[in-house]
Amino acid sequence: MNSARPELGIAVIGYSFMGKAHSNGWRNVGAFYPGGPTVAQRVIVGRDRERVDAAARQYGWQESATDWRAVLDRADVDVVDICTPGHLHEEIALAALDAGKHVLLEKPLANTLDEARKLAASAAAARDRGVSSMVAFNYRRIPALALARRLTAEGVVGEVREVRAAYLQDWLADERAPMAWRLRQEQAGSGVLGDLGSHVVDLLRFTLGQEVATVSGQLRTFVDSREGERGPEEVTVDDVAWARLGLSGGAIASLEVSRMAFGRKNGLTLEIYGSRGALSFGLERLNELWVDEGDGARRVLVTEPDHPYLDAWWPPGHVLGWDSTFTTQAAEFVHAIAEGREPSPSFEDGLRVQHVLDAIVRSSDLQQTVTLEGEPT
Amino acid sequence: MNSARPELGIAVIGYSFMGKAHSNGWRNVGAFYPGGPTVAQRVIVGRDRERVDAAARQYGWQESATDWRAVLDRADVDVVDICTPGHLHEEIALAALDAGKHVLLEKPLANTLDEARKLAASAAAARDRGVSSMVAFNYRRIPALALARRLTAEGVVGEVREVRAAYLQDWLADERAPMAWRLRQEQAGSGVLGDLGSHVVDLLRFTLGQEVATVSGQLRTFVDSREGERGPEEVTVDDVAWARLGLSGGAIASLEVSRMAFGRKNGLTLEIYGSRGALSFGLERLNELWVDEGDGARRVLVTEPDHPYLDAWWPPGHVLGWDSTFTTQAAEFVHAIAEGREPSPSFEDGLRVQHVLDAIVRSSDLQQTVTLEGEPT
Amino acid sequence: MNSARPELGIAVIGYSFMGKAHSNGWRNVGAFYPGGPTVAQRVIVGRDRERVDAAARQYGWQESATDWRAVLDRADVDVVDICTPGHLHEEIALAALDAGKHVLLEKPLANTLDEARKLAASAAAARDRGVSSMVAFNYRRIPALALARRLTAEGVVGEVREVRAAYLQDWLADERAPMAWRLRQEQAGSGVLGDLGSHVVDLLRFTLGQEVATVSGQLRTFVDSREGERGPEEVTVDDVAWARLGLSGGAIASLEVSRMAFGRKNGLTLEIYGSRGALSFGLERLNELWVDEGDGARRVLVTEPDHPYLDAWWPPGHVLGWDSTFTTQAAEFVHAIAEGREPSPSFEDGLRVQHVLDAIVRSSDLQQTVTLEGEPT
Amino acid sequence: MNSARPELGIAVIGYSFMGKAHSNGWRNVGAFYPGGPTVAQRVIVGRDRERVDAAARQYGWQESATDWRAVLDRADVDVVDICTPGHLHEEIALAALDAGKHVLLEKPLANTLDEARKLAASAAAARDRGVSSMVAFNYRRIPALALARRLTAEGVVGEVREVRAAYLQDWLADERAPMAWRLRQEQAGSGVLGDLGSHVVDLLRFTLGQEVATVSGQLRTFVDSREGERGPEEVTVDDVAWARLGLSGGAIASLEVSRMAFGRKNGLTLEIYGSRGALSFGLERLNELWVDEGDGARRVLVTEPDHPYLDAWWPPGHVLGWDSTFTTQAAEFVHAIAEGREPSPSFEDGLRVQHVLDAIVRSSDLQQTVTLEGEPT
Repeated sequence: MNSARPELGIAVIGYSFMGKAHSNGWRNVGAFYPGGPTVAQRVIVGRDRERVDAAARQYGWQESATDWRAVLDRADVDVVDICTPGHLHEEIALAALDAGKHVLLEKPLANTLDEARKLAASAAAARDRGVSSMVAFNYRRIPALALARRLTAEGVVGEVREVRAAYLQDWLADERAPMAWRLRQEQAGSGVLGDLGSHVVDLLRFTLGQEVATVSGQLRTFVDSREGERGPEEVTVDDVAWARLGLSGGAIASLEVSRMAFGRKNGLTLEIYGSRGALSFGLERLNELWVDEGDGARRVLVTEPDHPYLDAWWPPGHVLGWDSTFTTQAAEFVHAIAEGREPSPSFEDGLRVQHVLDAIVRSSDLQQTVTLEGEPT
Repeated sequence: MNSARPELGIAVIGYSFMGKAHSNGWRNVGAFYPGGPTVAQRVIVGRDRERVDAAARQYGWQESATDWRAVLDRADVDVVDICTPGHLHEEIALAALDAGKHVLLEKPLANTLDEARKLAASAAAARDRGVSSMVAFNYRRIPALALARRLTAEGVVGEVREVRAAYLQDWLADERAPMAWRLRQEQAGSGVLGDLGSHVVDLLRFTLGQEVATVSGQLRTFVDSREGERGPEEVTVDDVAWARLGLSGGAIASLEVSRMAFGRKNGLTLEIYGSRGALSFGLERLNELWVDEGDGARRVLVTEPDHPYLDAWWPPGHVLGWDSTFTTQAAEFVHAIAEGREPSPSFEDGLRVQHVLDAIVRSSDLQQTVTLEGEPT
Repeated sequence: MNSARPELGIAVIGYSFMGKAHSNGWRNVGAFYPGGPTVAQRVIVGRDRERVDAAARQYGWQESATDWRAVLDRADVDVVDICTPGHLHEEIALAALDAGKHVLLEKPLANTLDEARKLAASAAAARDRGVSSMVAFNYRRIPALALARRLTAEGVVGEVREVRAAYLQDWLADERAPMAWRLRQEQAGSGVLGDLGSHVVDLLRFTLGQEVATVSGQLRTFVDSREGERGPEEVTVDDVAWARLGLSGGAIASLEVSRMAFGRKNGLTLEIYGSRGALSFGLERLNELWVDEGDGARRVLVTEPDHPYLDAWWPPGHVLGWDSTFTTQAAEFVHAIAEGREPSPSFEDGLRVQHVLDAIVRSSDLQQTVTLEGEPT
Repeated sequence: MNSARPELGIAVIGYSFMGKAHSNGWRNVGAFYPGGPTVAQRVIVGRDRERVDAAARQYGWQESATDWRAVLDRADVDVVDICTPGHLHEEIALAALDAGKHVLLEKPLANTLDEARKLAASAAAARDRGVSSMVAFNYRRIPALALARRLTAEGVVGEVREVRAAYLQDWLADERAPMAWRLRQEQAGSGVLGDLGSHVVDLLRFTLGQEVATVSGQLRTFVDSREGERGPEEVTVDDVAWARLGLSGGAIASLEVSRMAFGRKNGLTLEIYGSRGALSFGLERLNELWVDEGDGARRVLVTEPDHPYLDAWWPPGHVLGWDSTFTTQAAEFVHAIAEGREPSPSFEDGLRVQHVLDAIVRSSDLQQTVTLEGEPT
C-alpha cells in the first residue's frame, strides 16, 4: 500500500501499562483519524531485552531496542514517546528535544519543580527550532470532558463559582497491600498527589480556562508502613490529598485524591456549578456528561456526531472505552505537527500543574493558605 | 376514647416552615409510635394573631396564643418546642427550662458560641431537676442515616479514614434572588454554615461517633449585594463554606455547604470510606443507603422491618418522605421523657457543633488550620 | 377552635395496612389541604373489638365499631371509606351508597366483572342523588405521575407510541414463603394481576388518556404449592402476569406485574415513548420524573411549587413519601364533594380497569389476542 | 520481527460500519490476546474501487480487492470475514466454506429461514473437513454479559423465572427520517426484529443456556411511509417488535425491540430474575453488571482481572468500549481454529435464533401463541 502522505516514525520508551496504552494509540490512530501523516511504529525501547522484544511483537512495533540513546540517533525516528517513571523524564526528554525529536511525555511532567522548569524551558527553546512537545494528559481527550470545556467556554453554565473534583481509587485501602516503588518518595516523587492530583489540576485548567491562584492543601498517609520484600518498610508518600484552590476567575475548587477510597476503582469525578448551569462527569461512565440548565440535570450520552472527536468513531450510542483517549491523543499530536500548530497541553501546561502540586505540599506543611506567584518560569 | 397512658401537653412556638413540620410530627407521633405517652397538641404560639389562629386550625392545635411567656405558665403544657429564628433561641429556651418545661429546640442551637454555652449549661442544670431537652437535628431520624451509624459502629466499614460530606442547595444561585433576613449577619448569625453546615457536622458526629479535633475552613460570599426593599443591600453572611475536619479517631472529613450550587435542591450527601467498606447516602433519595463491602456498592432500600424505625411505618418498598423525620423525632423525645432516659442529641451536642462552626469561621479568617481545645463547657 | 366551614364525618372500614394508610390521609388532609371542609375522623370499623379499639386510639378516630351496618345509619357519618378485602366491596359499597353516604373504595373495584358492573351502575345512580364515589387508585396522586399526565396532555412527548409498564415485587420469590389468603382464588379473586395489574392499567389510562382496545395476555404460577397451616396447599392464583395492550390512540403498551421478581420491593416503573419526547418514572424514587425532549433525559425532582400538589407540601427538594398519596387522595375526594364536582377516578373507571384485567385472563386462556368490545356498562 | 507462530491470513468483505468494526478487531487482536496465531490483515473487499482502497489504507489492510470470488482462490487467505448486508450472506458464505476458508459471518445469519438452514447444513459439513465457522454475535464478548452467563450457570440467581429484555433505539422516532434500504423488506429481510431482535434472542440463549419453546409475538410499523429519493415510499418492515418467549427451562422472557424509542440510543437492557438472585445489564453502561443476591443490587464494575476477558485488557476501573467486543471476538475465533476447538456461536446457533424470529412473525400474523417444534435442521 503506497501513500504520498508524509510519514512519522515513532519510538516509544517503556512497555508496561503506559507503554501498552500508548502503543494502542499509535496502532489505531490512522484508522480513526485518517487525515494526518502516516504513523510508523518504528521501535519500542525497554531495559529487558526479552520482554521488550515480546512487547514489540505484541503491540505492533517494527523493532525493539534496549538503549534509548541509540534510538535518538536514528533518522527514521521523528517522535519520541516517553512512558517511563517520572524520575527518568528529565534526562530522556531533554536529550530527545536536543536531538530534534518531537516529544510526547507521560504525566506528570517531572518529579520536582526544578526538573519541570528545565523541561518547560527546553520545550520552549525547541519550539523555536520547529520541534514540538506535549504532555500526555490523556483525559483531555475524553469527549465528555472536551464537551464540558466547550460548554463552559460558550457560557452555558454562566460564571463558574464552585467546582468539586475528586479522583478516588482504592488499591491501598487494604493495609496488607505490599510495599511498592510508587510508595517511596525517592523514586515516585510523590504519592497520589502527583499521580492522580496532576490529572485533576490539569482538568480544572482545561475545562474552566482558569489558573490556580491560591491553595490550601493537606496530605495524609494513613498506612505508614507496609510489608516489603525485606520486611516492614516505611511509606514515604501521601495516600490521600485534599486541597481548596482559589482560581483566577473567582471560582473555588475543592479537590480530593485518594488511593484509600474503598470501592472506588477509577473514581475521577468533576462537578462544575455556575451562575446559570451545572455540569457533572464521572470517569467510570466516561461516555456521559450531565448538563443542568435548569429543571433537572440531563444525562447526555456523548456519542453524537457533533460531540468532540465523535465523528472519528462509531454511530450514536456505541460507547468508547478508556483506551480511546490514547488514540485521540496520538492524533492531536501528529496532526498538530503536520499542520505546524502547537500541540496542547504543552510542557508549560505541565509546569503550571507542577506549581500547583508544589503549593499543595507547602500549604500542607505550613497548615496555611499559600499564594502562587507570577508566571511559571 | 379514654386511656390510662400519661399525657404530655405540647406547645410549639413558630408557625412557618419549621412550625408546620414540627406540627406534622406532633400530629402523627401517636399513629406511628403508639407505645409512648399520649401527646396533646395544646397550643401554637406566634406573633400574628390571625395567622397563628389559622395555623392552629390547619395543623391540629387546640388553641393559639401570641405571648409565649404566658404559655410557659400553663400547667397543661409539658413540652415547649421552639421553632423560632436562632436569635430568639436563648431567651425562650432558658425561660422554658426555668419554668420546668421539657424543651425541643430547632437547630442550630444558637447564633453565637456564648449563647450556646449558656444553653448547654442551663440544660445540664435542668436535667438534674428532671427536665429534658433536645436539639432538633432531625436528619438523625432518617432510617438510612441511622443505619449508616449502626453499620459503622458494628465495624462494617472498618476503620474510617476519609469522609466526604456536602449539603448543596441553589436558591441563591441566581444573583437576582432578593435580599432576605437570612442574609443579614445580625439576624441570621451566619449564612449557609450555620444553616446547613450545622446539619453536616452533627451527622458526622452521629454516624462516626468521633469528635472534630482540627479545622481548616473557608467562607465565601459570591454575590455580595442583593436587591432589598429599599434598593441594593449588602449581604453580610456566607454563600458557601468549605472545611477539612480532622476527627478524633483519625479520619479526615471534607465538608462543603452551599446555597449557590446550581441545580441542587436539597443535596445533602455523605460518603464514608473505611479500611473494609464504604457507605454512601444522598438526601434527595433518602430511602437508600449504598453499602460497599467489596465487589460493588449495594443499593439498600432502607424500608425493611429490621432497619431503624421501619417497623413503625409501612411494608418493604413503601418509601418515607422528608417529613417522617419529625414524627420520629417527636417519638424519640417523648419516649425518652416517659422512660426517664436522656433524649439525644442534647444541648451539649448542639454546643459541640457550634464549636466546630466557630472554628471554621476562625480558620477562614486566619487562613490557617485551627485546633479545637478541650471540652465544650 | 371554632370554624364556619362545613364538616364531613368519616367512617373507615378496615384497620390493617390500608386502614392505617387511609387513616393517615384523613388525619392529615386538613393540615396540607386546608381549603376544604373540616374532616372529622368519626369512627373506624373492624371485626375484632380489641384491635379496632386500639386502632381507633392509635390512628386518631373518635370511636370504634364492629358493625359496619350500624355505622351506615349514623347521621354524623357522611363518608364511608372501604378498606376491606375485595370480596366484601360489593356488599358494603352498595349498602353505603343506598344509605346516601359518599364512598371511597379501595382498589381493585371488585373481585369479579359482575360485581364491578353492579358497583358502577349503583354509583351512577347514586350520583344523580348527589352521592359521590371514588376508587382509591392512590398512585394518581403521586406528583411525578400527575406531572407525566400533564406533560403528555400538553403534547410534550408528541404522539405516544410505545409504553413500557411494570410493577415488580418479590415477596413470593422464596418458594418457602407460606400460603396466604391472597393466594387463594376464592378469597382474593386473582393474584398479582388484580393486585398490582389494576394499578398499572389505571395509570396507563390516567397518564395517556387512552383506553385499552386489544389485549394479549399471559398468566403464570411459578410456585404452585406452598406450606399452609395444615400442610402443603395449592396456590390458585397467578404469581406473574404479562400483557401487550393495544390502546385506543394507537400506542402499544407492554405490562409485566410480578410477586417473584427477586430484589424488587415496590418496583412500579413506567416509560412512555412518543414522537417528540419520552418520560420515565419509578415508584421507589417517586419524587423524580425523567423527561427527555431530545439531547438526554432530564432528572426532574418533582418538588417545585408549580408541580402538581406541591404547593400544599414543602419547599423544593424536601421529598414526599408514599403515604402522602393518601392525604392528597382524601383532599381530592372531599374537595370534590364540597364543590359539587365528580371525584375521579370513578367506579366506572374502576370497571374499565376490570374489563382489561378480565380480557388478560381470557387471552391467557385462549393463547390469542382478544378485543375489548363496546362500553363498560 | 520473526515468529514461529502459525499465521492466519484474513480477508474481510465489506468496508462500511461493520467492516470498520471488524477491521478494528483484526488490527488489535494480537495486542490484547497475544497467545494465538499471528493474524495478517491480507485483503479488504468492496465494490467501489476507490473507497475500498481508502479503507484498506485506513484500517491497516495489506491490499484491497473488488471481486470477492477471486479472493476465495488465494492460498494466503485462511479466514473470510463477511460484513455484507444479509441478502449476500448465503452466496458468499457457501462459496467460502466450499473453498475451505474459515468463515466469520455477521449477524443475523440470513434473511430467510431457508437460507439459514442451508448455511447451517454447509457449516456442519465443512466442520467435518476441518473448516470452522462462527456467527458474529459480538455482544457475547461483553465481559459483563459473559459474567452474567457465568453467574447464572453457577446458580447465583437460582432457578431463572422472569427475564426482561429490550433493545431500544430511536433513529426512526422522527417521522421525517428518510427512507432507507433497511426499511425495504426485499433488501433487509425484516426490520428491527432481525436487526436488534436477533441480538436479544442470542443473548437470552447465551446467558440462560435455555432454548425458546413457545412464542407470542407482535410487530408494528408506526410510520408506514417515508420520504424516499423519488417521493413518498412505503415502509415494508417492522419499526417495533414485542414477544413473550416460553423457555425450555421454564422461564418466561419478555422482549421488546424498537427503532422508535425516543431518547434511547443503544438501549439494550437485560434483567434476569431467579429464585435466589437477580442480574441486570445495560449496553450504554456496558462495563457494569448489577448483581442482587439479597439486601440490594450491587453495582459490579466488570473490570477486575478475574472477570471474563479482563486479564487481556487494562487495570481495574479502566473501562472498555463497544469496539472491544470485536477484538475479543476475533481472538475467540482464531484461538479456536488454532486449538482445533469449535468456535461459538456456530451457524446452528444462528439458525436457532432465526427459528425464533420466524416464530415471532408467524405469531404476530396469527395473533396467537405458536410452539417451536423439534430441532433446527
